[in-house]
Amino acid sequence: MTRVLVVGTGLLGTSIGLGLKAKGHRVQLTDKSSSAAALAADYGAGEVLTGEFTPEVIFICVPPEETAQSVIEFLQKFPEATVSDVASVKASIEKAVATSAYSPRFIPGHPMAGRERGGAIAGRSDLFVARPWILCPGDHKEVGRVAAVESLVAELGGSVVKMSASDHDRAVALVSHVPQAVSSLLAARLAEAEAEDIALAGAGLRDTTRIAASSPELWLQIYAANSAEVNQELKAFRADLDRLILALDAIGQPGSLAAVNQILDAGNRGVAKIPGKHGSKAQQYQRIVVMIDDRPGELGRLFNEVGALGVNIEELQLEHSPSAQIGLVELFVLPKSAESLIAGLQKRGWRIAG
Amino acid sequence: MTRVLVVGTGLLGTSIGLGLKAKGHRVQLTDKSSSAAALAADYGAGEVLTGEFTPEVIFICVPPEETAQSVIEFLQKFPEATVSDVASVKASIEKAVATSAYSPRFIPGHPMAGRERGGAIAGRSDLFVARPWILCPGDHKEVGRVAAVESLVAELGGSVVKMSASDHDRAVALVSHVPQAVSSLLAARLAEAEAEDIALAGAGLRDTTRIAASSPELWLQIYAANSAEVNQELKAFRADLDRLILALDAIGQPGSLAAVNQILDAGNRGVAKIPGKHGSKAQQYQRIVVMIDDRPGELGRLFNEVGALGVNIEELQLEHSPSAQIGLVELFVLPKSAESLIAGLQKRGWRIAG
Repeated sequence: MTRVLVVGTGLLGTSIGLGLKAKGHRVQLTDKSSSAAALAADYGAGEVLTGEFTPEVIFICVPPEETAQSVIEFLQKFPEATVSDVASVKASIEKAVATSAYSPRFIPGHPMAGRERGGAIAGRSDLFVARPWILCPGDHKEVGRVAAVESLVAELGGSVVKMSASDHDRAVALVSHVPQAVSSLLAARLAEAEAEDIALAGAGLRDTTRIAASSPELWLQIYAANSAEVNQELKAFRADLDRLILALDAIGQPGSLAAVNQILDAGNRGVAKIPGKHGSKAQQYQRIVVMIDDRPGELGRLFNEVGALGVNIEELQLEHSPSAQIGLVELFVLPKSAESLIAGLQKRGWRIAG
Repeated sequence: MTRVLVVGTGLLGTSIGLGLKAKGHRVQLTDKSSSAAALAADYGAGEVLTGEFTPEVIFICVPPEETAQSVIEFLQKFPEATVSDVASVKASIEKAVATSAYSPRFIPGHPMAGRERGGAIAGRSDLFVARPWILCPGDHKEVGRVAAVESLVAELGGSVVKMSASDHDRAVALVSHVPQAVSSLLAARLAEAEAEDIALAGAGLRDTTRIAASSPELWLQIYAANSAEVNQELKAFRADLDRLILALDAIGQPGSLAAVNQILDAGNRGVAKIPGKHGSKAQQYQRIVVMIDDRPGELGRLFNEVGALGVNIEELQLEHSPSAQIGLVELFVLPKSAESLIAGLQKRGWRIAG
């Protein structure tokens, strides 16, 4: 049983409280809004902080731009406690805290988990299950404090990944901050476009712009805190974009198609490096498209029969027809399962579309 | 019963043959490779072209860069026939054909359908069901010929959308060609990146780079034929990117955050304009995440119970944990259904993760 204090009872703080309380730890909660802390407590994430509580581990779960200040404040307030945080940027916070005398008790962290909705009510005890949770202990930390945070993260279901704060900021710029920016830039092209043009959109446009729906509030703080790493990646992206634009302006001239091809080929190689499920290398699944009527129960009937055929679905996607009450379910299965699955489904009367 | 000739027996030509033959039309097939035509015929897409066949409608289904030449050749060869095509670019082909005397019998077309796999064997009779199929009849065509093509497209299940060739090229640059290029550029950043960094990727990176896995061969021809429209959009995209990079370089100075916010906000507005299912405006669905064991039958059991609760799934996504044998199924349902679905699933023992 560890005594844990959660500072900031939004989505992440509340989820940490719910998860650790469920594991039998003693959790207290505080927030600059006392009614927010009370709400999270009512929601079951812990008790509101009392005067005599001496936490062993403190999670600072406030917005990125308030994190360093809050970390220092609670390091001072609780001179024995180990303090961690959850902000999406790490180097600037680590640097700000390092100027204080208390930094050896600070273990910077970043759970790679979230939801579209924020706030205590969106909190879930299993928000972190099977998601990476980055810790940046550096090389000067007391081993016991790192182990204490790691152990709590493991109890929340997170997969600990250790790296330096600067490596973290570079990595998340690449895999999260820049894709978010590029998706916003792409979706921004649609803001003034004609509805009839946008009506032709297929799954490709939907996929590439989905995360552009995220709330700007948090992202502004992330970009402000990680602007150097993000801009380094964005400038490399722009150099490739410039090459593509030049090549397209020169179509018909020697070498122009080769230049376009180089970018498409690098894209092929890049996407192939993204790990597939369970951390394994991306596998080539067989894609099977089943047409279903778009009404309650059809998916159940389908997946029930897929299950009865003993086939595991590796990935799936649901696409609706833009004009008919028909859904297309794309199933991705291991190649060895595909033939028998298609035969089995057809035998049971399902229409295989592709 | 219409006599139809399909020229080019790849994915699209074979799918047209399969679909129209199933509707009782007489379909003959030809391809510059006679063994490819014979394969498609064996596959059930029609008969190999014979000397005495006089087609009423011809679909030219060859690669974009060969389409105009092939259209003119078959307009000449069959002086009564109506000819359409399926290429992803339209203005350059329309222009090339207009120089011939036969152009009033040419109705340019573009079915917005495809698969990752190509070739006759990938052909499916219902490839076009509920997908937009653009026709560019212009204003000088014989009405009967337009109607003949429209009628066949309708029998294939396609939703006819009429627009000018230049409007088509502008629209597909926006909704298809530029998103493809941007996805390739983004994925290209991963080509030389460290595997440990990429391992932190979440659903956002996967979604934004999925279409970057497409084969460069077809896309090179599309970019070559539509380079002007694509570049106009890409340059507008680059202007926004430049604004973002400048703003990030100026973080801390007045106005820099407002400039970043402007782009994130435009992204929000753009993505909101993409139509949701069945052509209706994007609706705000409630997201429910259910944790399942990653083994055959679990999805069936889940969707069966969702169906029994009478709830229709509007969108869904399957995410696998990077490190555990656990899957997270994201269900999107109408808000009015959410509460009873959550309660019903929890009562049946399902773990709702978020």
